[in-house]
Amino acid sequence: MIDTSSADAALREECTQSRELLRGRLLHVFADEVRLPDGRLTQREYIRHPGAVAIIPLLEGADGSVQLVMERQFRYPVGRAVLEFPAGKRDAGEEPLACAQRELREETGYTARQWARAGQLHPTVAYSTESIDIWFARGLQRGERALDVGEFLDVLTVTPGELLAACRDGLVTDSKTLVGALWLQNVLGGVWTLDWQDAP
Amino acid sequence: MIDTSSADAALREECTQSRELLRGRLLHVFADEVRLPDGRLTQREYIRHPGAVAIIPLLEGADGSVQLVMERQFRYPVGRAVLEFPAGKRDAGEEPLACAQRELREETGYTARQWARAGQLHPTVAYSTESIDIWFARGLQRGERALDVGEFLDVLTVTPGELLAACRDGLVTDSKTLVGALWLQNVLGGVWTLDWQDAP
Repeated sequence: MIDTSSADAALREECTQSRELLRGRLLHVFADEVRLPDGRLTQREYIRHPGAVAIIPLLEGADGSVQLVMERQFRYPVGRAVLEFPAGKRDAGEEPLACAQRELREETGYTARQWARAGQLHPTVAYSTESIDIWFARGLQRGERALDVGEFLDVLTVTPGELLAACRDGLVTDSKTLVGALWLQNVLGGVWTLDWQDAP
Repeated sequence: MIDTSSADAALREECTQSRELLRGRLLHVFADEVRLPDGRLTQREYIRHPGAVAIIPLLEGADGSVQLVMERQFRYPVGRAVLEFPAGKRDAGEEPLACAQRELREETGYTARQWARAGQLHPTVAYSTESIDIWFARGLQRGERALDVGEFLDVLTVTPGELLAACRDGLVTDSKTLVGALWLQNVLGGVWTLDWQDAP
């Protein structure tokens, strides 16, 4: 039912020409001419993005309790401070796990003994190539954080119950964090399983 | 713990100047000069977006079973056909519920007797103002769809179990659909409640 990839050929759009519209400091925008399934030509505008990672860091207590290491960061486009899982863009040539380790350390100071890749999301399939890898981290050890110049964010700990209530109540609106909550709920509930590996 | 809005003043960035970088057919890009919490100036590039809605349409069987009306659509930026909940951008001045009714009808042919607003997501807090309202729809009645010119998409029905398995297995990567799955799981499980209203 779900995997109808054999039918996808009838939906496919083919690039006939690609043109750079904008190379900003952050945003790299293209307009491609594409051939639609019915043979007609149209234009698709989109952002090329290097990809990113988001991390769900589990602080496990000796009593079996779990807390999450999260961040509050002012996000200018939405005009407010946003509760988020730690995340960041991949450097050129950087593997997702290496990026996850770097971002967790830089933004929160924590390093993790074990990692598990959960899944992937495309935040905006309509106009960005961005893909975010979601990783769980556990066996956390506290250290010093190292924010980029001009980066301001608060680190806080949240229980899974607090996070899920905040998702329900509209206090969490960031897509990667909401998708992380879906993973968290199913992993902690024993419904979805993770394949943990030691940190490289 | 979650609501630390009193501390958010220390994270706030203030606009000092706004400049349009690109007015494409689809993408409207700005670069604002902003004052950081430490008084320094930096630049924020972002897309201004009119907002969107996503719909979780419940096809309820006489036996109490539920199926979801979903779509497969080729998404050029990610180069593949994507399984999604019906969704679309708001027209100028259009209320979210009116947009949800219009998009559901145009893309799938269905109209719904009852609607409930679930929540909101920001797909890309780092570089877009886009906000997506998530609505549930039930009491569906089939009709004729009316796709835009150049719009190609398949409509299919999926069970909640199939959807959640596809999220777990990486077959669903679209952020609004994954966030919809979080809502669906908690609503069908009786953990989160909805406030249903008759269609206006």
